Amino acid sequence: MSNGTSSDFRAEFACSEGCDFRASLLDVVYRCPRCGGLLEVAHDVAALRTVPAAEWKRRFETRFGSARLPDASGVWGKREWAYPQLPIEDIVSLGEGRVPLKPLPRMAAELGLAALELKECGVSPTGSFKDWGMTVLVSAVKHMRARGVPLRAVACASTGDTSAALSAYCAAAGIPAVVFLPRNKVSLAQLVQPIANGARVLSLDTDFDGCMKLVQAVTADTGLYLANSMNSLRIEGQKMVAVELCQDLGWEPPDWVVIPGGNLGNASALGKGFELMFELGLISRRPRIAVAQAQKANPLARSFRGGFQELVPLQAEPTLASAIQIGNPVSFKRAVKVLKAFDGVVEDASESELANAAARADREGTFTCPHTGVALAALEKLVARGVIARGSKVVVVSTAHGLKFADFKVGYHRGALADVASQFANPPVELPATLDAVRGALADLG
Amino acid sequence: MSNGTSSDFRAEFACSEGCDFRASLLDVVYRCPRCGGLLEVAHDVAALRTVPAAEWKRRFETRFGSARLPDASGVWGKREWAYPQLPIEDIVSLGEGRVPLKPLPRMAAELGLAALELKECGVSPTGSFKDWGMTVLVSAVKHMRARGVPLRAVACASTGDTSAALSAYCAAAGIPAVVFLPRNKVSLAQLVQPIANGARVLSLDTDFDGCMKLVQAVTADTGLYLANSMNSLRIEGQKMVAVELCQDLGWEPPDWVVIPGGNLGNASALGKGFELMFELGLISRRPRIAVAQAQKANPLARSFRGGFQELVPLQAEPTLASAIQIGNPVSFKRAVKVLKAFDGVVEDASESELANAAARADREGTFTCPHTGVALAALEKLVARGVIARGSKVVVVSTAHGLKFADFKVGYHRGALADVASQFANPPVELPATLDAVRGALADLG
Repeated sequence: MSNGTSSDFRAEFACSEGCDFRASLLDVVYRCPRCGGLLEVAHDVAALRTVPAAEWKRRFETRFGSARLPDASGVWGKREWAYPQLPIEDIVSLGEGRVPLKPLPRMAAELGLAALELKECGVSPTGSFKDWGMTVLVSAVKHMRARGVPLRAVACASTGDTSAALSAYCAAAGIPAVVFLPRNKVSLAQLVQPIANGARVLSLDTDFDGCMKLVQAVTADTGLYLANSMNSLRIEGQKMVAVELCQDLGWEPPDWVVIPGGNLGNASALGKGFELMFELGLISRRPRIAVAQAQKANPLARSFRGGFQELVPLQAEPTLASAIQIGNPVSFKRAVKVLKAFDGVVEDASESELANAAARADREGTFTCPHTGVALAALEKLVARGVIARGSKVVVVSTAHGLKFADFKVGYHRGALADVASQFANPPVELPATLDAVRGALADLG
Repeated sequence: MSNGTSSDFRAEFACSEGCDFRASLLDVVYRCPRCGGLLEVAHDVAALRTVPAAEWKRRFETRFGSARLPDASGVWGKREWAYPQLPIEDIVSLGEGRVPLKPLPRMAAELGLAALELKECGVSPTGSFKDWGMTVLVSAVKHMRARGVPLRAVACASTGDTSAALSAYCAAAGIPAVVFLPRNKVSLAQLVQPIANGARVLSLDTDFDGCMKLVQAVTADTGLYLANSMNSLRIEGQKMVAVELCQDLGWEPPDWVVIPGGNLGNASALGKGFELMFELGLISRRPRIAVAQAQKANPLARSFRGGFQELVPLQAEPTLASAIQIGNPVSFKRAVKVLKAFDGVVEDASESELANAAARADREGTFTCPHTGVALAALEKLVARGVIARGSKVVVVSTAHGLKFADFKVGYHRGALADVASQFANPPVELPATLDAVRGALADLG
C-alpha cells in the first residue's frame, strides 16, 4: 500500500479530444495547440489506484474533521485528486465546499421519490459554485508565479458569478484581477463583488463579443492569465461537488443527479468526479445524470432530442436563468461524452416552470437561484414523464445562493415576472392593527 | 469516565438575574415570572465535567468529520452543550455553522497584529449568524409540539436576519411562521426571504411599537411561540461561534474577539461559550472581548465610558449598520456581566469608519456586511489607541454575508453614502475598446 502523500501523484494537461498532446500544469495553455480541442487535467489513475478506496474515504473524512485550511476545504481536503503536486503554501482557499445537502422531504413525497436533496453549492464564500473551481485556478496561478512564470494578473470577460469568484480568490492571494465588460450593459450591482474585492474593472466602449476579443488579444501577449470557461483547471475543483455529495451519502451514489447547464463545464465536471470515484472503487455504480436547460437557451436539449446530434449554435433568448443564457456552449462535446457514459438525459424548462419550481423548493426552507429552479423544474418533468422512476433517490445541484437574485424572488412573489404564473406567490397580508384582525388572520394555522 | 452520551445531561431555564427560578425547557416562558429578568439555559456543568476536556475535543472533531446532519452542524455536533436532552429526531438543522475562519494577513500586518481572522458567520444557509441560534429555538419548538405543548406557530416582529432565519427553519420543520410588520415601513426586498420561505407576513396598519404590542398580546394567548431577541434558547446556538472559533485555532483562544453589538444577545452568547469551555478545561484562559457599536446607536459604549454605568436608553439614529440600530438593548445586563468577566471593552464607529473598514477587509477577498464593518473599525481604533496591543491575535466575528447589503456596497463604491468619505472606492475604469487603451490601463499591474 502506497503512503499516498500528495507528492506521490502527478497531473498534467492533456487534449480532451483524442490527440496525444500533453503539457505541464505550469504551462500557460488553454486549448490543444495541435487540434484546437479543449484541454483536461489528466491524473495518473494507476498511481491513485495504489491507495485502496477505504483509505481514500478515511483520509477524506479525517480531513473533513479538521477545522483548518486547506484540509477543511471541500476541494483541498481531496487535493491528490485536484492538483496533487501543488505545494500546500500555494493553495488559495476561502473555505469553499463542504456545503449542506438539504433534504426536501415534502417535495420528494409529492413526486413519489424515495429521497430528494439539494447540494447547496451557493452556501459558499462568494455565493456560488464557482468557488469550487476558482480556488484551483487561482492556486495554480499563484504556483506559476512562484515558479517564475511571468503572469501579472488574471483576467476574465464574465459578469456575475465567475468574476465574483475570480476577484475574491485573487484578492485573497494578492494577485491582480481584471474584469472586461461592455460599458452600459452591466449595472454596478451586478459588479459589486469584483469592485469590492479590488478587481480592476474595465468598462469598454463595445459589446460582449468586443470584450471577448480584447481579453483574448491582451492575454495572448501581456502576461495576463485567462480565467474563462474553457479553462480546464476549474473543472478539477468543480468535480469535487460529485465527490462530496457521495461522501455526504456514505459513498452510496444517488440514482440521479440533476444539474443546470449553460456552458456545460459544470455537467462535465460532475461526470469527471463520478468517473474518478468509480475507477478508484469508492463507488460501485454510476448515477444517471440529467442536465437541465432553460427553454430560452437549450442547444443541448435540442441535440439530445435528436439523439445527441451535432451542436447547432443558437441565439439564446433572455431568461431568468441569466447565467445559463448561452447558445453556443464551450463544453458541448465534453458534456455529451459524460451524458453518454452516465446514461444521461437532457430536459428544459420554461420561465414559468423554473420560477415555480424554485418557489416550491423555497417553501421547505432553502432559497434557490433561478438556475436551480431550472434543475428542479426539469426534475418535475422527468418524473412526470416516467424517465426518473418513482422511488428514485435524487440529488439536485443548487448552483448559487438566492441572495444573489433578490429581484427574481421579489418579482415572483409580486406576480410581476414576464411569462410567469406565480403558483406559490406569498404576498404580505394587509391588516388593521387590532387583535381581532390578527387572530382572524391566523385562525387556520397549526 | 462517563460515557457522556447526550442523554446523560440536562439543561433547564434559570433566571439570569440571580433569583432561583427554574423551569423545564419544555415550558413556554420568556422571562422570569418572579423578578422579570431574562432567562438563561443553565447546564449541569458538574455532569459535563465528568467528560474530560480531551474527550470533548475528540468528540467534536469526529463529528466535524461527519458529512451528515446533525453531527455535521456546527451547533448540533456539540449538542450536549446546547440542548442535551433534545431527541435527535426533533433537531431542525439546515447545516448551520462550520463556517470559514478567513485570515486578513495584509490588514493584520498594517495594524501590527500577529494574526487577524474573520469568523464568517454569514457563509450560512440564510446568510447570517442568526442561523446558529434559530436552529435551537425551532428545534425546541418542534420538541414541544411533539410532547403535546399546543403551539400552532412561531412568531416574531423583526425584519431582516431574524425573520429570515425563523422562516427558513420553520419551513424546514413544517411549522408555521408568522412575521409582524408595520405597513409601508418595510420593502418587499427586505422581506423576500420570509415570503419565499412561506411565512405568513402580516403587514399591519401601525408602527414597530404597535407590532411589538400586538405580537406580545397574540403570543400570550393563541398558542404562538415568541421568537424575539430575549429568547434564551437562541443563545445556546449562538454561543457555539465561540466554541467553533477556538476549535478552528486548535483550542488556543485568540487574545481578543471583536463582535458587533446591538441588542447584545450575540455578545452575551460569545461570553457564555468561552465561559463553558473554560469551566470544562477546553481552553486555559479567557480571551478579551471588544463589543463594537455604531456611534449612532451606542448605549453600551456610553455606559462603558462611564465605568459601566446604568443603561440610559437612547433614540438610536439611522445607521448603515441597520441591524444594530438599537437604543435600548434587551441583553444589556448580560453583556455587561460578560464584559466584566472577560476584561472587555466597548468601542464605537462612525458611518465613515465602518464603511471604510468594511471596504478595507473586502480587498482581501471577503464581502463584509456593515455590522462587521463596525467591528473592524472598532478594531482599528482600539489598536491605534493601544488598547489592543500590537502583536495580538484577534478574531473578528462577521455576522452576515455582504450579499444581503448590495446597496451598501454599491453606494460605497459610487461614493454616494451620506457621511461617508469612501477611501477605498474602486469604480470601473471607462475606456475606448482598443488594445492600446487596455494595455495602458493595465501597465502598472503585477
